[in-house]
Amino acid sequence: MHGSLRFSGFPAKKEPAIRTTIKDIAKKTGLSITTVSLVLNRKGGKFPAETKRAVLEAVDALNYRPNQLAISLLTRRTHTIGLIIPDISNIFFSELAKGIADRGRQDDYTVILCNSNDEYPLEQQCINTLADRSVDGIIMVMSAESFGSKNKECVSVLLSLGFPVILVDCFNDSDDFSTITIDNKQGSCLAVQHLLDLGHSRIGCISGPQRIKTNRDRLEGYTKTLKQANRSPEPALIYEGDFRYHGGYEGALHLLKQKPTAIFCHNDMMAIGAAKAVKEKGFSVPEDISIIGFDDIFFTQYMDVPLSTVAQPVYHMGQEAAAVLLEEIADGNKPKRRIMYPPRLIIRQSTAPPPSSRGPSVRLYL
Amino acid sequence: MHGSLRFSGFPAKKEPAIRTTIKDIAKKTGLSITTVSLVLNRKGGKFPAETKRAVLEAVDALNYRPNQLAISLLTRRTHTIGLIIPDISNIFFSELAKGIADRGRQDDYTVILCNSNDEYPLEQQCINTLADRSVDGIIMVMSAESFGSKNKECVSVLLSLGFPVILVDCFNDSDDFSTITIDNKQGSCLAVQHLLDLGHSRIGCISGPQRIKTNRDRLEGYTKTLKQANRSPEPALIYEGDFRYHGGYEGALHLLKQKPTAIFCHNDMMAIGAAKAVKEKGFSVPEDISIIGFDDIFFTQYMDVPLSTVAQPVYHMGQEAAAVLLEEIADGNKPKRRIMYPPRLIIRQSTAPPPSSRGPSVRLYL
Repeated sequence: MHGSLRFSGFPAKKEPAIRTTIKDIAKKTGLSITTVSLVLNRKGGKFPAETKRAVLEAVDALNYRPNQLAISLLTRRTHTIGLIIPDISNIFFSELAKGIADRGRQDDYTVILCNSNDEYPLEQQCINTLADRSVDGIIMVMSAESFGSKNKECVSVLLSLGFPVILVDCFNDSDDFSTITIDNKQGSCLAVQHLLDLGHSRIGCISGPQRIKTNRDRLEGYTKTLKQANRSPEPALIYEGDFRYHGGYEGALHLLKQKPTAIFCHNDMMAIGAAKAVKEKGFSVPEDISIIGFDDIFFTQYMDVPLSTVAQPVYHMGQEAAAVLLEEIADGNKPKRRIMYPPRLIIRQSTAPPPSSRGPSVRLYL
Repeated sequence: MHGSLRFSGFPAKKEPAIRTTIKDIAKKTGLSITTVSLVLNRKGGKFPAETKRAVLEAVDALNYRPNQLAISLLTRRTHTIGLIIPDISNIFFSELAKGIADRGRQDDYTVILCNSNDEYPLEQQCINTLADRSVDGIIMVMSAESFGSKNKECVSVLLSLGFPVILVDCFNDSDDFSTITIDNKQGSCLAVQHLLDLGHSRIGCISGPQRIKTNRDRLEGYTKTLKQANRSPEPALIYEGDFRYHGGYEGALHLLKQKPTAIFCHNDMMAIGAAKAVKEKGFSVPEDISIIGFDDIFFTQYMDVPLSTVAQPVYHMGQEAAAVLLEEIADGNKPKRRIMYPPRLIIRQSTAPPPSSRGPSVRLYL
């Protein structure tokens, strides 16, 4: 059975696959092409019910589906969203993509996926590709290389496209596009305040690369919260990491020399690396040193000491990005919005009061 | 600057965005539409160099890009790959998607992403959506619900589409489509042989749902390897899990009553859950009980006791799926292939010789 189906599906020679057209439906039903077209476009009110039924039965039997390309040329709508992200294999972005795809589907929109590999030239190529495919709009997480003059250049290119663009998790200061972010400063405040409330005073910090605004915001939240608690942030307790496991590992080794009782890592991957380094040096988490992360990636809850962290509602941010884009596609004059999600503190088992507050004990520092 | 650019980009009222056409280029250069068209289609050999330069400068200045929709209608090629996967937020599938997108880009192909949520009705909807978008082909990981009669139905639908389909990580027995998988039986053999080589004899097994062929293959690899070592598999040492953390956790609690010295989990998520249960019951991994997983998901290397596992080269499988699809798009008569990747044993720290082989010790079992 499958064999014969296959060979009707893949005709001999390199011809494109044969697709049922309204001509085939006209032929099968014995009706005119005009009649079939009117019935299919719901303008067949004057025809008898059996004519309509005959057309619909033929549609079913021949598996007829209207040619969306032709419809798109006519309506200038392709019902596709272009999505540009640094790396789909990063769980943060794949969760975002899922939110976008799920919300898009509600309005019969599909998503074209483009990975920029966090590189500026590839990102520009993605934009061109999506423009060529006549997407109705783009949702984009800018690459880490799009800062400074490249950011300006990228914004100009996006503005020249003539369709709406939504920036997610972005570090663009302009109001040219609607943006979906979380309040990064507030996220850091929540983490640091949690550690202060537990009684910590020497709170180390492993930040992300400071050329990126999101990361500067997280660091600012750290210093601001300490100052509000009448503590002056010590530069020696701040280490600039790279958002990767090894950056967290190296950062913790460095900070341990300063005898912190807690380390706030500006993403979870670095927190996992920091926890490893802390344990390798003979300390316990959280008994000797508390560790808190940022992002709430999937795995943190399954760690041996489940990680306290600051959660971003990334799936919901994806849904919102798609919803806002669809609104701007429907109305090109819709004012741009800055939508900010409040982050949420998640307390698991990696944070506890510092050793000193639990009575005297002998501690070995490096 | 951005303001003015924006308002040229988003014209007043709800009109669709204005796109530069070859008419605009003709107008700007003072050349005829025919001349512009010939130059753009590289058939302008007879025109002087300055004419060509004028056209190309206008293309640049007006940011002209050819209308791919019109080209697609003409060529019957959209240069898009449809991708249907159960869940993009699962790292296995996002890694696969990355491989597909990266390979597709080399041939100027983009990927339309559809999540089936592992549900059969949604999966059918995805297929229809992609057919409507005139994708040139589909790469698909069938949903867990597509087994039995639904699998047959799904295969019929795919065969009727008239374009190539590649199945990845699939459990379809027919040869109607090219398939990309790993050798699941061999993967289990590698894991069990590794445990036998370490000296284990009581090897528990937490399998995936047995209605799915891939999972049956993994279980068969387990029983076959034991039999080859002259050990008869004990039903009491086999637990059918659900491929999730809690399935592994529950499975380990159940198996511990049978006093295993090692547990082979048929995916890494269950191995993580099993490790948790084993530790909660007061045993050490690997000193008391060895644990080995399957898949080599990203996180296993960062666990407190990094997990020994069986790796699937999933990114490469994605690249291969795209490459095979592009070949079948180019040549509809290309014979179908079954491409199987050998799995790879990755020995980390969660597997070691059983306690008995390290001399007598007092062990407490439940």
